[in-house]
Amino acid sequence: MNQDRYAQGLLKLKEIDGEAGEQVIESLKDIAPDLGRYVIEFGFGDIYSRPGLDLKSRELATVAALTALGNAQPQLKVHIHGALNVGCTREEVVEVIIQMAVYAGFPVALNGISAAKAVFTEQDNKE
Amino acid sequence: MNQDRYAQGLLKLKEIDGEAGEQVIESLKDIAPDLGRYVIEFGFGDIYSRPGLDLKSRELATVAALTALGNAQPQLKVHIHGALNVGCTREEVVEVIIQMAVYAGFPVALNGISAAKAVFTEQDNKE
Amino acid sequence: MNQDRYAQGLLKLKEIDGEAGEQVIESLKDIAPDLGRYVIEFGFGDIYSRPGLDLKSRELATVAALTALGNAQPQLKVHIHGALNVGCTREEVVEVIIQMAVYAGFPVALNGISAAKAVFTEQDNKE
Amino acid sequence: MNQDRYAQGLLKLKEIDGEAGEQVIESLKDIAPDLGRYVIEFGFGDIYSRPGLDLKSRELATVAALTALGNAQPQLKVHIHGALNVGCTREEVVEVIIQMAVYAGFPVALNGISAAKAVFTEQDNKE
Amino acid sequence: MNQDRYAQGLLKLKEIDGEAGEQVIESLKDIAPDLGRYVIEFGFGDIYSRPGLDLKSRELATVAALTALGNAQPQLKVHIHGALNVGCTREEVVEVIIQMAVYAGFPVALNGISAAKAVFTEQDNKE
Amino acid sequence: MNQDRYAQGLLKLKEIDGEAGEQVIESLKDIAPDLGRYVIEFGFGDIYSRPGLDLKSRELATVAALTALGNAQPQLKVHIHGALNVGCTREEVVEVIIQMAVYAGFPVALNGISAAKAVFTEQDNKE
Repeated sequence: MNQDRYAQGLLKLKEIDGEAGEQVIESLKDIAPDLGRYVIEFGFGDIYSRPGLDLKSRELATVAALTALGNAQPQLKVHIHGALNVGCTREEVVEVIIQMAVYAGFPVALNGISAAKAVFTEQDNKE
Repeated sequence: MNQDRYAQGLLKLKEIDGEAGEQVIESLKDIAPDLGRYVIEFGFGDIYSRPGLDLKSRELATVAALTALGNAQPQLKVHIHGALNVGCTREEVVEVIIQMAVYAGFPVALNGISAAKAVFTEQDNKE
Repeated sequence: MNQDRYAQGLLKLKEIDGEAGEQVIESLKDIAPDLGRYVIEFGFGDIYSRPGLDLKSRELATVAALTALGNAQPQLKVHIHGALNVGCTREEVVEVIIQMAVYAGFPVALNGISAAKAVFTEQDNKE
Repeated sequence: MNQDRYAQGLLKLKEIDGEAGEQVIESLKDIAPDLGRYVIEFGFGDIYSRPGLDLKSRELATVAALTALGNAQPQLKVHIHGALNVGCTREEVVEVIIQMAVYAGFPVALNGISAAKAVFTEQDNKE
Repeated sequence: MNQDRYAQGLLKLKEIDGEAGEQVIESLKDIAPDLGRYVIEFGFGDIYSRPGLDLKSRELATVAALTALGNAQPQLKVHIHGALNVGCTREEVVEVIIQMAVYAGFPVALNGISAAKAVFTEQDNKE
Repeated sequence: MNQDRYAQGLLKLKEIDGEAGEQVIESLKDIAPDLGRYVIEFGFGDIYSRPGLDLKSRELATVAALTALGNAQPQLKVHIHGALNVGCTREEVVEVIIQMAVYAGFPVALNGISAAKAVFTEQDNKE
C-alpha cells in the first residue's frame, strides 16, 4: 500500500512540479533519500492527492505560504513553476504574491516577485 | 480620490469579512484610527479590489499564509469567516489548513484547525 | 501496510506523549480526522520510529525547535511532557530552553520556560 | 566583575522596565533562575548599558522587533511600558507599531496595537 | 489625491533611500509595477510621511525589525543605507543590530552585521 | 571574572566549532568586535559551559532550532560542523534535520539537508 502512496505521489509530483520536482528528489539521493520519499509519499501521495480542493487553489495557497514565510526561496520557485503547470496564469501568481504584502509585509512580497521574475525569465528563455 | 479608495475598501471589507471586519476597525478607533483606515484603503481598497484573482482564491491564500505564519490567530479567524463569506466551503478551508502541515509543519496546521473549529462552532451556534 | 504505519505510529505516540497526544488526535475527530491520522502515520509512524537517533535526543530537538519558533505553545507543552516521558530530566528540558536564548532570543526562551513551568506544576499536582 | 554586570544590569532593568521587569525575573526564580540572571547581566548589564544609542531609540527598536516577530506578546507589553518609562510618548510607540505593517504585515501591527492598548489602559486605571 | 500620495511618497523615498530605493521600484516595472506603486504610495506616502516620529527613529526601527525577522537581507541593506541617509551614524546602526541578539538571537544579529559591513564597504569604495 | 568567562568561552568555542567559530569572531573584528565578544562570553562561556546537558545534545538542539527557523544558513553550517566535532554522527545530524519536516515543514528540512550536504562534502574534500 505504501507502494501505492509512492506511485500515486510520484504521478502527482510530475503533474505539478515536472522536472524541478524530480531534481529535488534526485538531490536527496545520496544524503537523505528517505526525506525525498516522504516528500513524494506524504506531500504528494497523501496531501496533493486529496479531493476537496482543486490543484490550482492548492498551488496558489502554497505560493502564498512560501512567500509569507520568506525563508524558502528555492521551494517558492519550484511552486511558482508548479502553479503555472497546473493552469494558473502568471497574473494570478503575481496577484497572490502582491497580496502577501498585506499579511506578511512588503519585503517578503518583493522577494516573492523576484522569485517569480526568475521563473518567468527562465521559461521565456526556454522557448 | 482617497475618498474612493476608502469607500471602495469599506464595501469590500463588508463583502468579505462582514461584522468581524468592522469590529477590527472599531477597536482601533481610540488608539490608532489611521491603522484602521489603512486596512480599509490599502488592504481592501487597493488589494482585494484588484482584478486578476477571484475573491475565493484570495481568501484561501490568506488563510494559507496566516496559518503558516502561526502568529496571528485573531486575524486567521476573521479570514476563515471571510473565506466562507465569499463562497469557500468548510471543506476547502480545512483542506488549505491541512496542506500547510507540508510547508510550515504540523503545529501551525493543528492550531489553524483549532481556529477553524472555533469559527465553525460559532457559526453553528448562531443558527 | 498503511495499517502498519498507523499501528506503529499509535504505539510511538502513546510511548512518547501519553494521554496528551491522544487528546490532540481526539480533538481533530470531528473537523479534520485525516490530519490526526497524518500526525500518527507520518509524525510517529514514519519519523519517530526511525532508527539513527534515540528518543531522548528526538524530544530535546523538538523542544528546541518549538521553543525557537515561538508560535506553537500547546505543542511545546505536549513535547515537554513527551521529553519527560522518554527519560529526559526536568533539568535537561530547562537547559535546552535556556540555550534557545542564544539562537532565537530571550523572549521565546522566557515563554518556553513558562510552558515548562506549567507542565511541571501540572505533574506535581497530579502526584 | 560579574557582580558589576549584575548590579549594573539590575539598575538598568529598574530604570527601563520598572516593576514589570522585576516580575519577569521573580517568575523565573524557582525554575530557571540563571535565565533571569542572564536577562539582567547580558540584556541589561551588557547591551542596554552600552553607549552609542540612547535608551529611547533602544526601546523603540525593541518595540519594533517584538511587534514584527509577533510571537512574544508578554515581552512586547513589558517593553511598551519600558519605552514610556524612558521618555517615549504614547504617540511614538503607536507610530512604530503602525510602521511595522509595512515590514511585517497588518496582522502583527494590529496585535501590537492591542498590546499597546492594554498597557495604556492599565496605566490609566492606575492613576 | 492619489497623485499627491504618489508624489509625496516619491519625495520621501528619494530622501530616505536615494538610488537604492528607486532601483527597487525600477526592478518591478515589467512584472508588478503596482507593487512598486504601493511601496511609494503606502510605504512612503502614507507611513513615512506621518508626523509623530522622526525619520531617524523610523529607520532604526526598520533596521531592528528586518534584522530580527532575518528573511529580508536585500531590504535590510536598503534600509541601512536609508538610516545613514537620514542622519543615523554607523555606530547607531551597529548598536541596533547588536541589540537584536537579545530579542531574536545571535544568528540574525550576525547576519545583520554582515549586511551592515557590505553597505559600509560599498560606501567606502565609492568615496 | 569576565576574563574567565571569555577564556572559558574561547576554549568551548574551539572545542565545538573549531576554525569555523574563530572565523566568525574574526569577521566581526573591524565592525562589531563586542558582538564577537558576547558570542564567546555569553554563548560559549555562559551557556555551552553549563552542566546539565551534554555537548552532543546541545549541538543537536541547535541544529534543530536553526533548521526550523530557516533564516540562518551560515550559522546552521557552523553548528553542523560543531555537532560532528563533539561526537555526533552524520546520521544523527541528518535525522534531526529530517525530523524538522514535522515541526517546521519540508522546505526548511530540505534547506537544512542542503547545508548538511555542503558541510559533509567540504569535510570529504579536506581528507
